[in-house]
Amino acid sequence: MKYPDWIALDTDRPEPRAWQMAEDRAQGAATALPAGGLGALAEPGGLVVACGPLAGILPAPLPRPVPAAPLPEALPLAEHQGVTLAAVPGLSAGTPALMTGAETRLAGFLALNPGWDGAVCLAGEETHWVQVSAGEAVSFQSSLIAPLRRAMAAETAPGPWDEGLFLEALDRTRSRPETLMSGLARIRAAERLGEAAPGAGLSQLDGLLIGADLAAAKAWWLGQPVAVITAREAIPAWSAAFSAQGVPALAAEEAAMTVAGLVAAWKRLG
Amino acid sequence: MKYPDWIALDTDRPEPRAWQMAEDRAQGAATALPAGGLGALAEPGGLVVACGPLAGILPAPLPRPVPAAPLPEALPLAEHQGVTLAAVPGLSAGTPALMTGAETRLAGFLALNPGWDGAVCLAGEETHWVQVSAGEAVSFQSSLIAPLRRAMAAETAPGPWDEGLFLEALDRTRSRPETLMSGLARIRAAERLGEAAPGAGLSQLDGLLIGADLAAAKAWWLGQPVAVITAREAIPAWSAAFSAQGVPALAAEEAAMTVAGLVAAWKRLG
Repeated sequence: MKYPDWIALDTDRPEPRAWQMAEDRAQGAATALPAGGLGALAEPGGLVVACGPLAGILPAPLPRPVPAAPLPEALPLAEHQGVTLAAVPGLSAGTPALMTGAETRLAGFLALNPGWDGAVCLAGEETHWVQVSAGEAVSFQSSLIAPLRRAMAAETAPGPWDEGLFLEALDRTRSRPETLMSGLARIRAAERLGEAAPGAGLSQLDGLLIGADLAAAKAWWLGQPVAVITAREAIPAWSAAFSAQGVPALAAEEAAMTVAGLVAAWKRLG
Repeated sequence: MKYPDWIALDTDRPEPRAWQMAEDRAQGAATALPAGGLGALAEPGGLVVACGPLAGILPAPLPRPVPAAPLPEALPLAEHQGVTLAAVPGLSAGTPALMTGAETRLAGFLALNPGWDGAVCLAGEETHWVQVSAGEAVSFQSSLIAPLRRAMAAETAPGPWDEGLFLEALDRTRSRPETLMSGLARIRAAERLGEAAPGAGLSQLDGLLIGADLAAAKAWWLGQPVAVITAREAIPAWSAAFSAQGVPALAAEEAAMTVAGLVAAWKRLG
């Protein structure tokens, strides 16, 4: 390999994160992207393999339409701030739908589960439901819950996770998705009236949002193998949600799948 | 009247606003609440009649449970920063639900339409659907679309209102409310792929949100007289939304109803 030492960069999140890599292994935990950008992240002449929208760094490469393998056969290299950059393009669908970053987590998951046939739920800034067959993303549908979750979470008192309240709220929007926005108003009213236990509002919020997501994507998770890729702290909620539907879902951690996907991309540089 | 000159104050919005009043008439347009608070707003010994959560001013009075007339029989006076303050309490329901400010707009509407029997939709920071009979708010249900609208509107390109796109999006969530969050992801994808005309995203966003609101509150607007009280710029969208359902709805401007409601409160000071 021309670049045994390189930087893995994930820009598909409000705060981009980077890993120092030695061949296919991350050297320690992720770090934030320094204020100096790529030039401060890598040595001169070094390699950065990136996924995500690359906002403020470079224009992201054009997304590739599905059906497609999550990674292209070859990744073009670009020079930027004295650094060599290989950027993974996103995937698009005609709905329209767009993912920039989730395709890399999907590639990491498929590198570890090469025979996977079924649905993959990538729950991060957006939720992407992907139909996977023969190593390809055949089609996908997205939903947008993160901005709403952020706006609402600020109004709820922190506290312990309450799985009972979570599942009750989830069941409400999964069976009656029209109750999502009135459910949010109830959470807010309970907080303002001082009637909510600490942590109750956030448990219910996650239940309402994931329940609405399950209702919207029923065709994607019903009757086939499901894997969910999400942040470590969100895995219990998503696992409980699928269990409550009688769906045994694999769970994989978002950060680990991102690194695995960027490693798969790095191997295509030859 | 003891206080012929007074200040009307509405704190039920991200930026509170005030009107200089001469008896029952506003003297000019609303102004922002000065940084100095009440003491900078009114003369020493002057009167402020306020509605809303009063955040950062005083603890708001306890809300009154429905069924109830929108205004109490008498308003208690408090002293604050050398100013006399009369604060309108909110209304609560056991759902739980809470309005702080909308009850005053409802009082203004009922002062102008004393015989009203039917539903009133108060669409502001929250949407409150109120069942009104014999001058009382019998019950109400709320939904929370403003935080989501703000978070999403920042991602759409401004441009002219497109009523066709608005009604198409509205029909989608009204008939299939589970498509709300995937519809939001489509709007975002179209903007990021450069496929959205200026103004298209915002027209569709309002359609999805109002359609979801109509789906959640069907029992409130179907088969009875409906009045919608909202900001001037939102009246066309709400009017189009009700027309598309075959519901002839009265529309009244939020600011005018707020002033009328605060005048009704001022008259109860005796």
